[in-house]
Amino acid sequence: MELVEFLQAAGRIRPFIHHTPLIRSEFLSEQTGGDVWLKCENQQPTGSFKVRGALNRLSQLSEEERARGIVAASAGNHALGVAHAATSLGLPQVDIFVPHTAPDAKLKKLRRFPLNLHLAGQTYEDAHQAAANFAAQTGALEIPAYDDLDVIAGQGTAGVEIMADLPTADLILVPIGGGGLVSGVATAVRHINPACQIIGVQPEASPAAQLSFAQGRAIDPYDHAPTIADGLAGGFGVTPFALLRQNPPEVVLVSEAQIRQAILALLAEQQLVIEPSGATAVAPLLVGSVNVRGKTAVCLLTGGNLAMNLLHEIITQLPNY
Amino acid sequence: MELVEFLQAAGRIRPFIHHTPLIRSEFLSEQTGGDVWLKCENQQPTGSFKVRGALNRLSQLSEEERARGIVAASAGNHALGVAHAATSLGLPQVDIFVPHTAPDAKLKKLRRFPLNLHLAGQTYEDAHQAAANFAAQTGALEIPAYDDLDVIAGQGTAGVEIMADLPTADLILVPIGGGGLVSGVATAVRHINPACQIIGVQPEASPAAQLSFAQGRAIDPYDHAPTIADGLAGGFGVTPFALLRQNPPEVVLVSEAQIRQAILALLAEQQLVIEPSGATAVAPLLVGSVNVRGKTAVCLLTGGNLAMNLLHEIITQLPNY
Repeated sequence: MELVEFLQAAGRIRPFIHHTPLIRSEFLSEQTGGDVWLKCENQQPTGSFKVRGALNRLSQLSEEERARGIVAASAGNHALGVAHAATSLGLPQVDIFVPHTAPDAKLKKLRRFPLNLHLAGQTYEDAHQAAANFAAQTGALEIPAYDDLDVIAGQGTAGVEIMADLPTADLILVPIGGGGLVSGVATAVRHINPACQIIGVQPEASPAAQLSFAQGRAIDPYDHAPTIADGLAGGFGVTPFALLRQNPPEVVLVSEAQIRQAILALLAEQQLVIEPSGATAVAPLLVGSVNVRGKTAVCLLTGGNLAMNLLHEIITQLPNY
Repeated sequence: MELVEFLQAAGRIRPFIHHTPLIRSEFLSEQTGGDVWLKCENQQPTGSFKVRGALNRLSQLSEEERARGIVAASAGNHALGVAHAATSLGLPQVDIFVPHTAPDAKLKKLRRFPLNLHLAGQTYEDAHQAAANFAAQTGALEIPAYDDLDVIAGQGTAGVEIMADLPTADLILVPIGGGGLVSGVATAVRHINPACQIIGVQPEASPAAQLSFAQGRAIDPYDHAPTIADGLAGGFGVTPFALLRQNPPEVVLVSEAQIRQAILALLAEQQLVIEPSGATAVAPLLVGSVNVRGKTAVCLLTGGNLAMNLLHEIITQLPNY
């Protein structure tokens, strides 16, 4: 993908999204001996970066596609991104499939949009299957969460913003789920500053990207173990894999306990509510599995839709922070 | 005070602060039947609006005043504002007096600045007395937290931003402590849109502004009852009173339980970490003591430095949110 595709995407989505703040973390800079910044995608409308890709994809629909209606499956944030984009663009018919296990913070927000919400199964794969069946039956157009070049171009605009605000960044830590974000950000950033390193972060429970790069093929779906990082659970997409296979990012794995610790640190030290998937970008810095001493590092905080029951659990299990 | 004083202040402080986001609250809009917006001063450097007034005051020091050194007393946020401003402006000598009871979130942030931190007494008044003694002994210039026209002009720039982003606002809810913010915002906003109503919110534990308007004189200091809203406890300043006495804002009181509920609602529904003083602006909407049905309302979220022990307490006492 060429840089111009990301810049065109940025222009398309500009009226509907925020250029989100990039804030310096005094706490993480002290902890690591580096110069650490946080890209606050939790401040995007709907609370995650997913609006970027959804808007870039949906703003390019033909009249015929608009009329057919759209459908999307999601653990929550992609659904919210599609809902926000569809509402912003005035699409008439939106059906969303979400697993029963989606966090309450995301379901509550979804229910505010004018759309048909279907709860289907226990996992993202279940919801995805139900959405595919619905699309086959009704002719609705399915909007993929990550396996799509327009979605990837949209997500990559977050990388363009980081380069605009902090062109000297040495590395960017990016949570990896299906790979839409990491492939977009890596491609865009490498066009602008090839010396900037991209480090992907995955939960140990779902290391599909790491396995995909090791085995030389995209593993999707992936039969993951349970993880609180609902947004990162599952397979790594074919399109993201194709974009990154020549120059794959280093992939670092983080444990569930490390993700919890990262959520708590962001809350206590930065007064930021970040969901598990978003907090994974910070976890390697807290435990030292990525060393940023003397470097300028950016953690991409992908979203803020933290379920209150999980927050309650984390804060009561670690009362002496 | 004339509008130009606020616009000049805005120009002075612009390089060092954020024009903070004004975000629509779907949750509060649904709850109230109004169109409710949140002015996110928690996103200011140091986590509160106090940097505005401190920067406007300190950027006008003479060479002689700079050399004398500066001193400030604070429950936390004014100290942080002064520390940030002094560092931004390169002032050589800063002494800060804070009561032992200041929240850990604020003390942690203060310790990161190059300044002399003195813990003095249990209340803001104790710290203020210690700072005054220090100023008398050393010749350092004391930077007042609210009783100063330059500080007030700085705080009022938050109101100028609200008018720029949402000129049709019908009312603005503003937490009241010493009165620097409410007097600045009310004066600036009334110049721009005289129809916009200003509603002040105080904890029941410290209704000094309400009493001041009722009795026709500024009550400062005020012997307040205990409150979790540390930033709002104490007297209402002479200068804020003088600015508002001709046209005092309506003042609404909120209970400690209502403030806790507001903190929890902002956390759960908006994914925002807001300290008790800041959450007071939302409390009257949750309980209906201010009716905004059919109106466009702005809640000024003054700061985000929420102590973790308080968050722990709130979240464990109300586990079934």
